[in-house]
Amino acid sequence: MSILVVGSIALDTVETPLGKVVDSPGGSALFFSAAASFFAPVKVVGVVGEDFDFSIINFLGKKKVDLSGIRVEHGQTFRWGGRYQQNMNIRDTLYTHLNVFESFQPVIPPHYRKCKFVFLANIDPVLQLQVLDNMDSPSLTVLDTMNFWIAGRRQQLMEVIRRVDVIILNDEEIKELTGQYHLQQAAQKLLQWGPRLLVIKKGEHGAVLVSANDYFTAPAYPVNEVVDPTGAGDSFAGGFVGYLATCSRLTDLNFRKAVAYGSTVASFAVESFSFNRLREVSRRQIEQRYEQFRKMTHF
Amino acid sequence: MSILVVGSIALDTVETPLGKVVDSPGGSALFFSAAASFFAPVKVVGVVGEDFDFSIINFLGKKKVDLSGIRVEHGQTFRWGGRYQQNMNIRDTLYTHLNVFESFQPVIPPHYRKCKFVFLANIDPVLQLQVLDNMDSPSLTVLDTMNFWIAGRRQQLMEVIRRVDVIILNDEEIKELTGQYHLQQAAQKLLQWGPRLLVIKKGEHGAVLVSANDYFTAPAYPVNEVVDPTGAGDSFAGGFVGYLATCSRLTDLNFRKAVAYGSTVASFAVESFSFNRLREVSRRQIEQRYEQFRKMTHF
Repeated sequence: MSILVVGSIALDTVETPLGKVVDSPGGSALFFSAAASFFAPVKVVGVVGEDFDFSIINFLGKKKVDLSGIRVEHGQTFRWGGRYQQNMNIRDTLYTHLNVFESFQPVIPPHYRKCKFVFLANIDPVLQLQVLDNMDSPSLTVLDTMNFWIAGRRQQLMEVIRRVDVIILNDEEIKELTGQYHLQQAAQKLLQWGPRLLVIKKGEHGAVLVSANDYFTAPAYPVNEVVDPTGAGDSFAGGFVGYLATCSRLTDLNFRKAVAYGSTVASFAVESFSFNRLREVSRRQIEQRYEQFRKMTHF
Repeated sequence: MSILVVGSIALDTVETPLGKVVDSPGGSALFFSAAASFFAPVKVVGVVGEDFDFSIINFLGKKKVDLSGIRVEHGQTFRWGGRYQQNMNIRDTLYTHLNVFESFQPVIPPHYRKCKFVFLANIDPVLQLQVLDNMDSPSLTVLDTMNFWIAGRRQQLMEVIRRVDVIILNDEEIKELTGQYHLQQAAQKLLQWGPRLLVIKKGEHGAVLVSANDYFTAPAYPVNEVVDPTGAGDSFAGGFVGYLATCSRLTDLNFRKAVAYGSTVASFAVESFSFNRLREVSRRQIEQRYEQFRKMTHF
């Protein structure tokens, strides 16, 4: 089954204690695509400026990511600069130049509309609603968002939440969204608003899946060295939705496996800057780590 | 197999967003005993003042905890007062009156010396060494410690570490002890110092077990309401060592199960103040939650 992703395409300048990259490809739509394309065909909707060199994402085309929904607008590509502190859990944003992304209007090409899986990456909820309105009849819609929209576009975000099947959030975001400190209570409150299922990302502490009838915890894979955490969340989402797009039925067990695949793919993503690791890793290596992951939690 | 525990016995005054108790029984030795006694006989070494009313720990005697190693010294019992903030992960110590605990010298009664399992709760490493010197030939020795001893008694603590089989620490402590930020690297460094196995407690994020040939992660059980986290770490240790004391062999799998039992018992401990929940829960309830715990992590 094909997957649609709508999100940002950026040129990231990232500094971590282990190195630095300048204007390397990033953004939620690309990280998601790189991760999801291990499992299923992906179609991207996004925007770049005239300065964008498509050759730097050639590898996505080779992985059957459909880039025809990326529009080139007059101006510069979205640029983000950030620096991670020693412990890698804290990052300082050095600059955010939205450029052409500021006036992004997602246009869904006709041949994208039949995608059965939809990932609404972290963009303005107003745009996320437009995307939902333009899809034929998706089997599964998955939402990501962030504090900025929770605080500034609450009403529209609530409408998206009512309409999607799955929400992926981090632990801070779900607390802010629901006003509940206690994660279990926050999750229960959010489920009452409509989604079938929540995935709460806890960074180095793994992820939790909560639905009306299931509760599942997955650790983070213990990578030897985190080189760059940028894109980990979108890579997780890519592995998660990607695996689900291969399933004939969306059972509780398959959602659990999808969380484990998401964690597995994210664990590769952080092992190098930008897409460097996701570009070289094979599906076989993903399966091997997924098996190690399973063994890590068995008792 | 019998378990020896040497640690503190305290009267705790604890305030959390959900209530308050005054001078209720606590301390590492008692929390450990309450937890371990679900599984195996426990023998306690500790000290109290003349003001200590043994009737408040009657229930431990009924659970076959041998209290004959508790000495009554002239003076007042150790008292601790603390207040937890809204999110329960931060606590402020209001006072620490060591009283008779300040000059505590563990005396191991002769009938305690053949205990095959030894838990050295969080006390001065100098005293922990004395305890080790006074045991016949334990099968498994388990160490707990804290930042105070890591900073102030490093040399003696290192000697204890060289002599024990298992160390239980939280994530902050292992980083401070090894000077390594990255948890995996910190664990590898600590293992080189002698212990066979480490258990890293991560509070609401669960626990990780690391040995030369095993890596296991367990989540925390998602309790509906954390009423009082005091004693959670010692209850975890009690469930962990308690389960091991029932095993005919100390295999990797049994260590994993022990972590899960530790987490299970700790999850009950935090559901009420002091020992209130551990006192009423049954072994059957522990088994039921342990099974839920297993299901929570299966995929």
